[in-house]
Amino acid sequence: MKLNGRSEFQIIDFIRSRCRLSPELLQGIGDDCAVAGIPEGHVLLTTTDLLAEGIHFDQRWSDLFTLGRKSVSVNVSDLAAMGARPRFLFLSLAIPETLQTEDIEQFISGFMDACESYGAVLAGGDTCASKSGLVVSVTAQGITPESAWIPRSGAREGDAVYVTGTLGDSALALRHLLAAEKPDPFLLRRHIDPEARSEIGAKLAAAAVPTAMVDVSDGLIGDFEHILEESETGGEIDLTRLPLSKGFQRELADTPGLIELALTGGEDYELLFAAPPEHETEIARMGREIGTPISRIGKIHSAGFGLKLFDHKGEVPLPHRSGYKHFSETT
Amino acid sequence: MKLNGRSEFQIIDFIRSRCRLSPELLQGIGDDCAVAGIPEGHVLLTTTDLLAEGIHFDQRWSDLFTLGRKSVSVNVSDLAAMGARPRFLFLSLAIPETLQTEDIEQFISGFMDACESYGAVLAGGDTCASKSGLVVSVTAQGITPESAWIPRSGAREGDAVYVTGTLGDSALALRHLLAAEKPDPFLLRRHIDPEARSEIGAKLAAAAVPTAMVDVSDGLIGDFEHILEESETGGEIDLTRLPLSKGFQRELADTPGLIELALTGGEDYELLFAAPPEHETEIARMGREIGTPISRIGKIHSAGFGLKLFDHKGEVPLPHRSGYKHFSETT
Repeated sequence: MKLNGRSEFQIIDFIRSRCRLSPELLQGIGDDCAVAGIPEGHVLLTTTDLLAEGIHFDQRWSDLFTLGRKSVSVNVSDLAAMGARPRFLFLSLAIPETLQTEDIEQFISGFMDACESYGAVLAGGDTCASKSGLVVSVTAQGITPESAWIPRSGAREGDAVYVTGTLGDSALALRHLLAAEKPDPFLLRRHIDPEARSEIGAKLAAAAVPTAMVDVSDGLIGDFEHILEESETGGEIDLTRLPLSKGFQRELADTPGLIELALTGGEDYELLFAAPPEHETEIARMGREIGTPISRIGKIHSAGFGLKLFDHKGEVPLPHRSGYKHFSETT
Repeated sequence: MKLNGRSEFQIIDFIRSRCRLSPELLQGIGDDCAVAGIPEGHVLLTTTDLLAEGIHFDQRWSDLFTLGRKSVSVNVSDLAAMGARPRFLFLSLAIPETLQTEDIEQFISGFMDACESYGAVLAGGDTCASKSGLVVSVTAQGITPESAWIPRSGAREGDAVYVTGTLGDSALALRHLLAAEKPDPFLLRRHIDPEARSEIGAKLAAAAVPTAMVDVSDGLIGDFEHILEESETGGEIDLTRLPLSKGFQRELADTPGLIELALTGGEDYELLFAAPPEHETEIARMGREIGTPISRIGKIHSAGFGLKLFDHKGEVPLPHRSGYKHFSETT
């Protein structure tokens, strides 16, 4: 290992020296397990994501500090989708011998930077050597009052459908990167350093506004399908209302087919949720207070309706590809 | 991917179909996060382990069913070391294209089999493709009354030191495997399919017997050092009392140098703990009831004593190598 003599224990010591304490964390790094107190009347939410070099990221496009940040954000986004803020994170790294000590420190610094900005602490993990690329496995835990978590399964006929932020930016950036083109810096940032919608997710859930919520990681259509399946409902999306960034719109004007990236591209890390339409004013106010744009883009119907897309001319066919499939499309 | 057309979602469906339900698990696989209820007055314990092909395992020696079992046991062992039984497990897999559908199903079946035997449920995870070998990341959660968890840091001068089971079996099997020799079947089993000491760990902790506890995964000396460092004490081990299996003793008779494997070999997954000597009878009774042998092998001293080993002739030098270092010794 070209780790300038660092052993597994030395890497752990480096990580441990950078860890913030938390009153709820009774035991952090340095024992067989982390130990956390859970307040009465609260539930524990857990999510885990695996990022593999050559599949999820490419060091030509993202420095390791930024990759450390993203590995936190993608997990925080899953907690946000249930309405919880992150508390404790666990980081496991399989480290190839091509990485230098400074590279690992960069990654960990980015990881810690994102933990700090989301109000989470690193509570444990594991490290080992890798015979090939870098593999990053993160587990994130959140705590929320037992009545305040939002499943995918609660959408009801008549609910309106909302999405935060803008769609397709990340997929458009990736398309440029794969074609060896330089994407617009805003689009690139959306791909390599997405920001999880932690604040608005927690605020919406605390106010019991969403009936169902999901984060858009597999593409809008694929994740909307998750809500419809779990809720046993149908639904429509109005394509004329899709929120698109200026950068995306600029390229869309030349290449109308790019609209598919906003529907199926994946890695948006925006929140998609259903809510009774009488909450519309409250939702808009929350979005303004936090500075998160929220757009109404569709409606929930009964199961028999299926999933339909409309534009200004009427119904349009579903795109062939919905959702991001690691096995069929990236290898 | 040679996955017979299976996508990520189909693999998740296969896993989901095999999952047992649990009353505490309010939401299992199929949403953005798992949601679990934590009983009042209890704490959450979390541990995570990463197993990488070519570093931690070799498919020539272990079938995938057995590897699935081991990936559970090594995490359950960390919970046992704090005195907790496992409740919820999370499994992430980076799957190389050389693996067939049946291989993945074998792995998952072994994983589920071990979950069942330890009384745990699979609550979530992630899957993706891997450009190289199989990578397995497991996170395990346990719940225990808030006063019943055992840290590494509580050992006190005068405590006796105990270890469960036998030492060195796994390392001796690995030594044979690396030399392309066939190990004794008992020793091989101890290496590829170790059993975590979940029952005795929980029972000892519930009775508040251990002052400090750790599982022996880095080798006896290395893990004893963890207790001494965290407890700020010294300690001794009496080499004449080391518990050794018949299979290990047979080979030791011909090759006395093998004793180092029982001291520094790693992957024993036995529990090493300190306890006031007045508990000796109670400890022996618990071991008998569960069918887990427990041996007294040492003593805790004040910090100034350091770490010393003794045999029937007196003090012996510490082995040069203590603890399993992934980076320096396996690549």
